[in-house]
Amino acid sequence: MNTLEQMISGIQPLKAEAVEAASLHLDSLTKPPGSLGRLEDVARQLAGISGRTIPELGKKAVIVMAGDHGVCEEGVSAFPAEVTPQMVLNFLNGGAAVNVLARHTGADVVCVDIGVNADLEHPQLVSRKVRKGTRNMAVEPAMTEQETVDAILAGVEIVEELVGKGYTMFATGEMGIGNTTPSSAILAVLTGTDVGVTVGRGTGIDDERMRHKQTVIERAIERNRPNADQPVDVLAKVGGLEIAGLTGVILGAALHRCPVIIDGFISSAAALVASRIAPHSTAYMLASHLSQEQGHALLLEAIGLSPMLRMDMRLGEGTGAVLAFPLIEAAAKIMQEMATFSSAGVSTALDSE
Amino acid sequence: MNTLEQMISGIQPLKAEAVEAASLHLDSLTKPPGSLGRLEDVARQLAGISGRTIPELGKKAVIVMAGDHGVCEEGVSAFPAEVTPQMVLNFLNGGAAVNVLARHTGADVVCVDIGVNADLEHPQLVSRKVRKGTRNMAVEPAMTEQETVDAILAGVEIVEELVGKGYTMFATGEMGIGNTTPSSAILAVLTGTDVGVTVGRGTGIDDERMRHKQTVIERAIERNRPNADQPVDVLAKVGGLEIAGLTGVILGAALHRCPVIIDGFISSAAALVASRIAPHSTAYMLASHLSQEQGHALLLEAIGLSPMLRMDMRLGEGTGAVLAFPLIEAAAKIMQEMATFSSAGVSTALDSE
Repeated sequence: MNTLEQMISGIQPLKAEAVEAASLHLDSLTKPPGSLGRLEDVARQLAGISGRTIPELGKKAVIVMAGDHGVCEEGVSAFPAEVTPQMVLNFLNGGAAVNVLARHTGADVVCVDIGVNADLEHPQLVSRKVRKGTRNMAVEPAMTEQETVDAILAGVEIVEELVGKGYTMFATGEMGIGNTTPSSAILAVLTGTDVGVTVGRGTGIDDERMRHKQTVIERAIERNRPNADQPVDVLAKVGGLEIAGLTGVILGAALHRCPVIIDGFISSAAALVASRIAPHSTAYMLASHLSQEQGHALLLEAIGLSPMLRMDMRLGEGTGAVLAFPLIEAAAKIMQEMATFSSAGVSTALDSE
Repeated sequence: MNTLEQMISGIQPLKAEAVEAASLHLDSLTKPPGSLGRLEDVARQLAGISGRTIPELGKKAVIVMAGDHGVCEEGVSAFPAEVTPQMVLNFLNGGAAVNVLARHTGADVVCVDIGVNADLEHPQLVSRKVRKGTRNMAVEPAMTEQETVDAILAGVEIVEELVGKGYTMFATGEMGIGNTTPSSAILAVLTGTDVGVTVGRGTGIDDERMRHKQTVIERAIERNRPNADQPVDVLAKVGGLEIAGLTGVILGAALHRCPVIIDGFISSAAALVASRIAPHSTAYMLASHLSQEQGHALLLEAIGLSPMLRMDMRLGEGTGAVLAFPLIEAAAKIMQEMATFSSAGVSTALDSE
């Protein structure tokens, strides 16, 4: 069992020598230098993460953290809160979008009850419930600091167990009716941005309900006064259990030198918190897609990530992240399989002859 | 053997009833309506193409058309022209980037010599050479009208043969040192845009050579006076054999009601020509990525396509297009495998109850 401080101190920067060796290898391959763009960036990043010039990827998992939100009492979502446990069962039965896309990309779905407001049992469910949903942040802090740290460490431990089973790459996913509300609040507090900019339509609310959602978030920040310099305090006061769990997943991946693909708005809020808790962790992150949720671009920019996919998705669950798995694997295979100028007998650029 | 006119008249619009049925199915699945974004657009498009609500995809191929360019005499590229046949052998030996990425995504590479300036023989090479490279368009028309039509029909026939072998989805790829030069010329003429906007760095030329390239393209347009209202005339005078071949591939895919994924700048120039020859063909196209080549965004906009990937790639060969295969297949699997609200027992949105 790690403490949060022990874990943070264990997260190391990328291995610069392996990054350099990967760059040299990339420039020997039969293509103009840099012409594979982001695939080359990913190849260098994988080298820096693993320490191997030519990366070897193993099993991969999308970790879907589910939790409920007391703030749903305020009417911030288009869907009723009962959908959270219903969708958890859908994940466990393999019928949700993330299941379809994970099967398609050869990833396993690991579904975690970190804070669903229902009694759930299923042989495939990872039960790490910290409490049955957060408190209503419009009235009081969503979580205590201890609950927040417990949820983070649960995420770290789940990654540790999966690493022990041969998993080498992770994607983040989540389910929690109402969870764009705490995500908008986290973004607003940690970047000092107006809630009017960070709030969005979530699963599809209309203008009137979005104005109400903005007011609720503003009230939650005003009541709880989260300290922007203490990311765990922000997470506790205006965050969520699944967001804290994903912060732990991301930190755990960084600790174990595994790439972690960040999904959309809620996952990116967790990634922003992780980047503030342990700045070295950002080097292990890969942004997957740009969500349609207003504020996602700002969130990725605040972390320093750039998305590879523009699919206009806004579903969460990890659906965008799993679609990026084949892109990461493509980068690894470029390093493993492409011919070099000399092996293929291809002339190099006129300027470099 | 088709004539060009017979083929054009055979290209039909999408089947509206199947598109509508696909929309209804999408809205019954366990997700907020529209939340899978572009995947839902693709699912509707696949339905309209095939006429089946739930699409079934079969084998897929990336067709890599190779040709040389007389305009290379003017010094427009960073690489010597001898690289075209060298890279064709690299494709045939499986060592190029497109081979690696096609293996990764389960696609076959079909390499076509449509106009390489060398004698090439290989059991896997599809030999459809129209002539050994184009003429220098800075001096005279790159091709005659007959050569252009021959190259287009070769592309159509290659698709026909592959459809006969069970292929149901295609991607476009190309190899031809110097071929961003005719592509920039085509874009400039067909959209009435200044060459200064349509010219780019290709495989990586410096500022000085890019200014020279611009002058060469401007001279080619002035000398040959291509008729912007006659796309085949534009292709003949300032185009290329592999570009004409890919125009045929795209038209052939549309004729046989198969989706065709468009790669980067050169492939998109071929797609623009196809869209002007047969406007219905655009409904069968899917844009894959936004290339780093200046002018690509303008080119896609002129066709009315929007790319799914932002990988900052600029290699061609079909490398960006094959990376989109898994995204198209993901859309098909969403239609095939996802649970519905009623089958999974999940509540719908509050507003729709």
